Amino acid sequence: MKITMAHGSGGKSTSELIDNIFKKANSNPVLDMMEDSAVVDGFKTIAITTDSFVVTPMFFNGGDIGRLSVCGTVNDLLMRGAVPKYITSAYIIEEGADTDDLEKIAESMSQTAKEAGVTLVCGDTKVIEGKCGIYINTTGVGFVENGIDIKSANCKAGDKVIVSGNLGDHHATILSSRMGISNSIKSDNAPLNEMVLGLIKNNIGVHAMRDITRGGLGTVLNELSSASGYGFLINEEDLPVSEAVKGFCEILGLNIMHMGNEGKMVAIVDSEDANKALQIIKSSKYGENARIIGTVTDDNGVIMNTKIGGKRIITELFGEGLPRIC
Amino acid sequence: MKITMAHGSGGKSTSELIDNIFKKANSNPVLDMMEDSAVVDGFKTIAITTDSFVVTPMFFNGGDIGRLSVCGTVNDLLMRGAVPKYITSAYIIEEGADTDDLEKIAESMSQTAKEAGVTLVCGDTKVIEGKCGIYINTTGVGFVENGIDIKSANCKAGDKVIVSGNLGDHHATILSSRMGISNSIKSDNAPLNEMVLGLIKNNIGVHAMRDITRGGLGTVLNELSSASGYGFLINEEDLPVSEAVKGFCEILGLNIMHMGNEGKMVAIVDSEDANKALQIIKSSKYGENARIIGTVTDDNGVIMNTKIGGKRIITELFGEGLPRIC
Repeated sequence: MKITMAHGSGGKSTSELIDNIFKKANSNPVLDMMEDSAVVDGFKTIAITTDSFVVTPMFFNGGDIGRLSVCGTVNDLLMRGAVPKYITSAYIIEEGADTDDLEKIAESMSQTAKEAGVTLVCGDTKVIEGKCGIYINTTGVGFVENGIDIKSANCKAGDKVIVSGNLGDHHATILSSRMGISNSIKSDNAPLNEMVLGLIKNNIGVHAMRDITRGGLGTVLNELSSASGYGFLINEEDLPVSEAVKGFCEILGLNIMHMGNEGKMVAIVDSEDANKALQIIKSSKYGENARIIGTVTDDNGVIMNTKIGGKRIITELFGEGLPRIC
Repeated sequence: MKITMAHGSGGKSTSELIDNIFKKANSNPVLDMMEDSAVVDGFKTIAITTDSFVVTPMFFNGGDIGRLSVCGTVNDLLMRGAVPKYITSAYIIEEGADTDDLEKIAESMSQTAKEAGVTLVCGDTKVIEGKCGIYINTTGVGFVENGIDIKSANCKAGDKVIVSGNLGDHHATILSSRMGISNSIKSDNAPLNEMVLGLIKNNIGVHAMRDITRGGLGTVLNELSSASGYGFLINEEDLPVSEAVKGFCEILGLNIMHMGNEGKMVAIVDSEDANKALQIIKSSKYGENARIIGTVTDDNGVIMNTKIGGKRIITELFGEGLPRIC
């Protein structure tokens, strides 16, 4: 069935769409009440984050917009040391979109929410004119335990920089799909609960964490540098990149430092705890290729020791990057 | 300046857009940290709600998409008896949209958030191809005091039905604008904190509340009937409607029971407290035209006593209604 403007009316057609698709994929006592807002247990300190997803194509190797929309938001909560708890789901659907696609996406959201331990508590559905696209906003709420204080400004000279796995996978997947290139590259879209909560449970001195999305590692490290007033020195030869993505970048002249992931993070960790932190991440789901890639310095900005023995300044991303990667 | 795909890259252009527009309109210590998520004080019981806004035109008599996006979400929190506390703001912007419009909308959001007592704690910006449109998702978090339990299922036979003011204003405004009709009708988009929190502070026996948006009062009452298992008997002559909207409906053959508002609610109140509740609403901002319009019955569905002495079954909205009203 094709979506029509009537599905956005707020009347009978909207409630049928919700019953036949969204309620089938996601059902729990809070959501099923269909009230104006969801009333749930709270916590002393909470984390809140919001993200809209406009990725194209909606289905790609290794994932889809539904899985992505849960991972992106769950990971943003985790990056402050919060335990993800609740998630919302708001669809803007373009007229003509197929309900079969909506069903697959809603089911994928539901599965990923289960994996990430979050309960979907409320939703919204709007319909606009357009070209059959589907856009999803998710907002997440988590709780922060007493004493947890993880933020960019906490980076200190001497801290170690850990990247949780291979860079560029999601970016290379989306670009391959748009170019019609068939290869083995898969999106890394994944929720990072196990590695992050593992670090916290083991009292690792995590000073800051950021997930590596739009703008890539180069942009994230520059933002950490601005917020903390410290510099970053990283080693090109230590950057984890799969052979497939490395080859893809060489052919197309892409800079791995500006390519987005959707299931990787950079953690800035007290140097004394760095090796233990690396082991925790490496032994967790989605962390097997983690590496220590550099150090926080007393300088400013981001410098890379290149493989050929030089030094290169790494800037944040300028210009377009790859549009609609997430 | 016109928005380009580069503004959605997550790099330099995105951060300039955020600095020059969104940060100018909204600044507070939590938001200014620009972290992956906002960490804030929590509460024992919280309410969460999400809503996307796709209204066209973006600027209309009496309001704009920015004001609407705060009121819609704040009111959804209030309808469960929650005190609105935090709000998120996620923009999906179509290429070619004007940054002057964005500035006005962000400023309007900021003013309305102040009026509604909510702090904007995090945001997101995405850019898609299209025709210069702007879509906003807001998600709200509020706290619910011990002992407050307001929900549709709590309606009981004998309860009184109070409507907080004139019906159809927002709907008639949007339709007038699309038809190029110049008249005195203004959108009622407004946050209903004062009337709702007034009812709660005065221990009024409020059983259920719903704001009257897409689908209109007819759809809301049918949803309350389904959720509670009770019926509604309302009086046509008691429905508050302005002369201008009444005339507009007569000319165009519109049914006031299916027209949306954005600053009106229906409250289902214990009959003993109904007159006191009405006075509290009438003396609050945006409540001067409130009326008791009917009673909850032991029947099912929604029946209207018509002005000419008959009875009419009021259904939920079927079909399209007015697309993109909010």
